[in-house]
Amino acid sequence: MSDLQRLLDLEEIRQLKYGYFRCVDTKDWDGVSACFVPEATASYPGQTCADRGEIVEFLSGSMFPGLITMHHGHHPEIRFEDVVEQDGADRANGTWYLHDKVFAPEFNWALEGTALYEDRYVRTPEGWRMSHTGYERMFESTWTTEDGFRLKQGNRSRGGE
Amino acid sequence: MSDLQRLLDLEEIRQLKYGYFRCVDTKDWDGVSACFVPEATASYPGQTCADRGEIVEFLSGSMFPGLITMHHGHHPEIRFEDVVEQDGADRANGTWYLHDKVFAPEFNWALEGTALYEDRYVRTPEGWRMSHTGYERMFESTWTTEDGFRLKQGNRSRGGE
Amino acid sequence: MSDLQRLLDLEEIRQLKYGYFRCVDTKDWDGVSACFVPEATASYPGQTCADRGEIVEFLSGSMFPGLITMHHGHHPEIRFEDVVEQDGADRANGTWYLHDKVFAPEFNWALEGTALYEDRYVRTPEGWRMSHTGYERMFESTWTTEDGFRLKQGNRSRGGE
Repeated sequence: MSDLQRLLDLEEIRQLKYGYFRCVDTKDWDGVSACFVPEATASYPGQTCADRGEIVEFLSGSMFPGLITMHHGHHPEIRFEDVVEQDGADRANGTWYLHDKVFAPEFNWALEGTALYEDRYVRTPEGWRMSHTGYERMFESTWTTEDGFRLKQGNRSRGGE
Repeated sequence: MSDLQRLLDLEEIRQLKYGYFRCVDTKDWDGVSACFVPEATASYPGQTCADRGEIVEFLSGSMFPGLITMHHGHHPEIRFEDVVEQDGADRANGTWYLHDKVFAPEFNWALEGTALYEDRYVRTPEGWRMSHTGYERMFESTWTTEDGFRLKQGNRSRGGE
Repeated sequence: MSDLQRLLDLEEIRQLKYGYFRCVDTKDWDGVSACFVPEATASYPGQTCADRGEIVEFLSGSMFPGLITMHHGHHPEIRFEDVVEQDGADRANGTWYLHDKVFAPEFNWALEGTALYEDRYVRTPEGWRMSHTGYERMFESTWTTEDGFRLKQGNRSRGGE
């Protein structure tokens, strides 16, 4: 692969992941699904998923409409893999540093954490897709919001246009 | 446009936006102004601006010297536009995911939020500039800081060198 | 230097810094050390370091195993330097916008802040390395965590694998 092609691929993989996070926080589950190959796997703390259907089911079940979420992925360290597997497809892997916040206004409940992601990507005829995702927590904090805490949810974070 | 030129343009547009955010938080309003073409428009929640002068007036009026602000723009999803307008200039648009915090120490007041930006960019003889910016809130929270909360403002966030 | 080479260098310098932050937060001090040339200097608020050994000693002394840290570096504004110094090496400099959080669970103590980094980079036979790093605070806040605040530290943020 040429250096130029690798730079184009890096940009495409970054935008794939950025779009993934945007779809998670706008609760666009079709958009989330389209970021993965059908056989993609996931490994979260306390939860593994054996295919794309399970990933989307797990994420959409965790993030119900009243929940406000922020998933920001920083520090993409993306590397191309030299090992060619049986299918001959181009592969890459990536480390990302997540910063997430979750608010459940109904319960005055809030969460903030960080985690290190380890992803794998594969080039398909339609472009790069995630074939595996997963993370380990660096820290996770939770608290009850105070009386003076006021929170407004934007329409798009409910899944609206 | 060649693939190489598009990658160079992407980097220039990213650095344009990074410089914009740096100038906002250091209250460098000449620097903010230089990021826009004169006819640039903006669309914020509850506020629209019809040209660059109005944008800078609105931003500098909102962020007075005692205010401490953090504007971090994540997840640049920048796309080049194929439609050529009458002036024949190169154009691009970009989605960004904002994370902002604001502290008004005088009032023990704090804000944290996120938003999705939709920008448009145009190539000028002096380089890429913003021709439109605007965002929709994902969430916005405000609270009163507690007695034990201590806050120090760095000199550069007052607009100093 | 060709445009293509500059884009490859930009990506390498970004990943250098991303790896640096990951090593700081996972307390991998050998990994931190490998990001610098031996003669690297640093300038933090209230602390300067005259070589790489002092930098690593200062960072590892500040961030003891029970401390939970988040160091996220945003908005890389990396520029290549045209001035060739006596050694003829390629050089670059970079502005970054830090967002950091620190928790000391033993003391119910927390910190959040932002800062503007000014780095310098040099190309060595082993790749790009930091030759100088330093930042100025935009703001720094500290507080005591409340009774209802619960915090879990992941194993990797203790320096574990």
